[in-house]
Amino acid sequence: MKQTFAEVITIGDEILFGQITDTNTQYISEQLSLIGIKTIRKSSVGDNEKDILGVLSEAINRADVIILTGGLGPTKDDITKLTLCKFLGTDLIIHEPTLVHVRSFFEKRGKPMLEINNQQAAVPRICEVLFNDVGTAPGMWMIYNEKIIISLPGVPYEMKFLMQNRVLSKLKSHIETPFIYHKMIHTVAIGESFLAETIKDWENNLPKHIKLAYLPSLGIVKLRLTAIGEDSKKIITEVEQLVEKLEKLIHPHIFGFDLDNKIEEVVGKFLVSQNKTLATAESCTGGYLASLITSISGCSAYFKGSVLAYSNEVKINVLDVNKLDLETEGAVSEKVVKQMALNVRQKLNTNIGISISGIAGPSGGTVEKPVGTVWVGYSDEKNTFAQKFIFGNLRENNIKLASIYALNMLLKELKKVS
Amino acid sequence: MKQTFAEVITIGDEILFGQITDTNTQYISEQLSLIGIKTIRKSSVGDNEKDILGVLSEAINRADVIILTGGLGPTKDDITKLTLCKFLGTDLIIHEPTLVHVRSFFEKRGKPMLEINNQQAAVPRICEVLFNDVGTAPGMWMIYNEKIIISLPGVPYEMKFLMQNRVLSKLKSHIETPFIYHKMIHTVAIGESFLAETIKDWENNLPKHIKLAYLPSLGIVKLRLTAIGEDSKKIITEVEQLVEKLEKLIHPHIFGFDLDNKIEEVVGKFLVSQNKTLATAESCTGGYLASLITSISGCSAYFKGSVLAYSNEVKINVLDVNKLDLETEGAVSEKVVKQMALNVRQKLNTNIGISISGIAGPSGGTVEKPVGTVWVGYSDEKNTFAQKFIFGNLRENNIKLASIYALNMLLKELKKVS
Repeated sequence: MKQTFAEVITIGDEILFGQITDTNTQYISEQLSLIGIKTIRKSSVGDNEKDILGVLSEAINRADVIILTGGLGPTKDDITKLTLCKFLGTDLIIHEPTLVHVRSFFEKRGKPMLEINNQQAAVPRICEVLFNDVGTAPGMWMIYNEKIIISLPGVPYEMKFLMQNRVLSKLKSHIETPFIYHKMIHTVAIGESFLAETIKDWENNLPKHIKLAYLPSLGIVKLRLTAIGEDSKKIITEVEQLVEKLEKLIHPHIFGFDLDNKIEEVVGKFLVSQNKTLATAESCTGGYLASLITSISGCSAYFKGSVLAYSNEVKINVLDVNKLDLETEGAVSEKVVKQMALNVRQKLNTNIGISISGIAGPSGGTVEKPVGTVWVGYSDEKNTFAQKFIFGNLRENNIKLASIYALNMLLKELKKVS
Repeated sequence: MKQTFAEVITIGDEILFGQITDTNTQYISEQLSLIGIKTIRKSSVGDNEKDILGVLSEAINRADVIILTGGLGPTKDDITKLTLCKFLGTDLIIHEPTLVHVRSFFEKRGKPMLEINNQQAAVPRICEVLFNDVGTAPGMWMIYNEKIIISLPGVPYEMKFLMQNRVLSKLKSHIETPFIYHKMIHTVAIGESFLAETIKDWENNLPKHIKLAYLPSLGIVKLRLTAIGEDSKKIITEVEQLVEKLEKLIHPHIFGFDLDNKIEEVVGKFLVSQNKTLATAESCTGGYLASLITSISGCSAYFKGSVLAYSNEVKINVLDVNKLDLETEGAVSEKVVKQMALNVRQKLNTNIGISISGIAGPSGGTVEKPVGTVWVGYSDEKNTFAQKFIFGNLRENNIKLASIYALNMLLKELKKVS
């Protein structure tokens, strides 16, 4: 089977000049690799015809699939569509369903539809429109010299919508892709080097057609196994057996096996299945934990709310934390964080309460309690306890790590019941 | 003066295949643009000789400066240095000062120095070494066909160290750079198209040496003016006069002029200067508003806390929202959101209370109150009111937009006082 090669191109001065971070090309090349298409080059060019034509002519000689993002806005510096027409030898026409969609988009928001917004519905005559439900710039699918050229809006959630709902399935039906089996193993609260050391022997014994990738982010390391071959049954069995062996090595750190599991989602599923409700009391994380929990659609089934007690006054008046304990032990202490967990559970009338109090930084650290010190509390009907963590110096990282470690503490308790 | 053009190239499979996000090229091109060097293309290729040689041969024909990152590690898949030698027609030699540095690096950390680590000190014979104080892979400065080729390690903090301490000053002394003046204008709650339409005449009258860029993100559009020229005084005056004219057109939407202003930061500064305290009551945003506010270091001076009343029970029991109003008007209503703002202010004893209640989606919408309907409430000692917004269909976006619009509502009130 022939390997399919792709190039991913971003168009726009704002990425080229470093004004915004490009996350689109990472997402696109990752999704392509999941269906067996190999990205061989990524390029960024500015909003000018010469450079766009230049990169297109080069890419069309190397790749089978070219995915462009950006330059589809209504302003005059967005010239992707006009340039595509020049490259393909065609012209722009109005795509009526998109025009109707753009109009209703503005109507719904009670905003005036301007003359320039009509241009959102203009597409190269030879293209097939990839209808964009979540924005006004349509995606476009074009064939040129038997190569596939796909143009997508640069707004990340619009690009993602089109990739998931239009592009990937269409690519799969156009291109002979090998059988690929992916297995993701999501781990939490174990560092990348320590993880690598722990599974070293297992990793060294992986067969040649099964690749392992480490995908680290804050507090989380995803391990991705990718197996390629002909005999699907054999490959799946092989991978699942490898995962079983891996589980034995790092079981306490694994929280999921689905491709895009999030720990807040896994926690939510446990709470639903155990018919339990949750409340949180946060100090240094300032709502970040709650915002992770409520990012999951349907969380109202188990999450009742939170008290963000940023000041000691609120800890005392709203959460009924003992004033003397606050004064003698400090807000970042086992005693206080246990009271926060217990009291928020009782006050909000839930089965479980989780609390966080710590020093996110950059200021507020002492020799005894340096920046990065965080206490996490847990309380249910039977049990109230707390655990201390020491993270690093960066405020943003400390807030995120504390929230992820708190979710992991909750998950461990939920797993004990199941 | 001749414009200097640069290309930025990342080398490494992990970026090409989408396993990690590339933030290096954004940083490099931004730093280059600040000294007047224009990036004309960014490329990513994998760890293989053919593709690295290919991208180098293309880039050398277009750019005056080529900056490469990545592929300098000691493992066998890191082949940047060998490939550079092939491209430049030279060979590798050991750079003694770097070898000494690498040895002491390992000694300090108590780690064994392996044979393979000696390779860290090997550099192309014709290069000038850019000494890397913070890591083991040296930077390299090479001249080829009167073009400058710079190779840097891919680890972001090592790359940044070398850019700041070696590369930028060396570039400035090698290249005649023009005077460049940047001005950022941050706007909120005005869509990109409507903004473009509003300032159309102003934009069309910009002189040729002053460029405008639109940098949109959720709820926010940044406008960046970049002026290039010889006479710095004249240029600064010119840009500032243009900004004054712009302010007259879109004044209510502007919240800042610094390069990296955030609205939550601007709100914080107003609260500090007016010596006011803030509390929030959130429903559908689930802590996202509070997490924006608390992402700003020093927010404890004005932010006391929040009640996240995700369930009606918490709205009634903790926030004292009237039960009858909740039943007759619904949680997403003017009456309820005003009570939330007023009550959280009184309960947490602050000067200002902000509340949000809405339907983030994907479920929970009705014909009367579709998904995306959000009420934001405001309350201070003199005044309590609410405003309704209708956003879109995406849960994540609705949560973020509601929070940003709430911050903007607060900012408008704070501005009235100043």
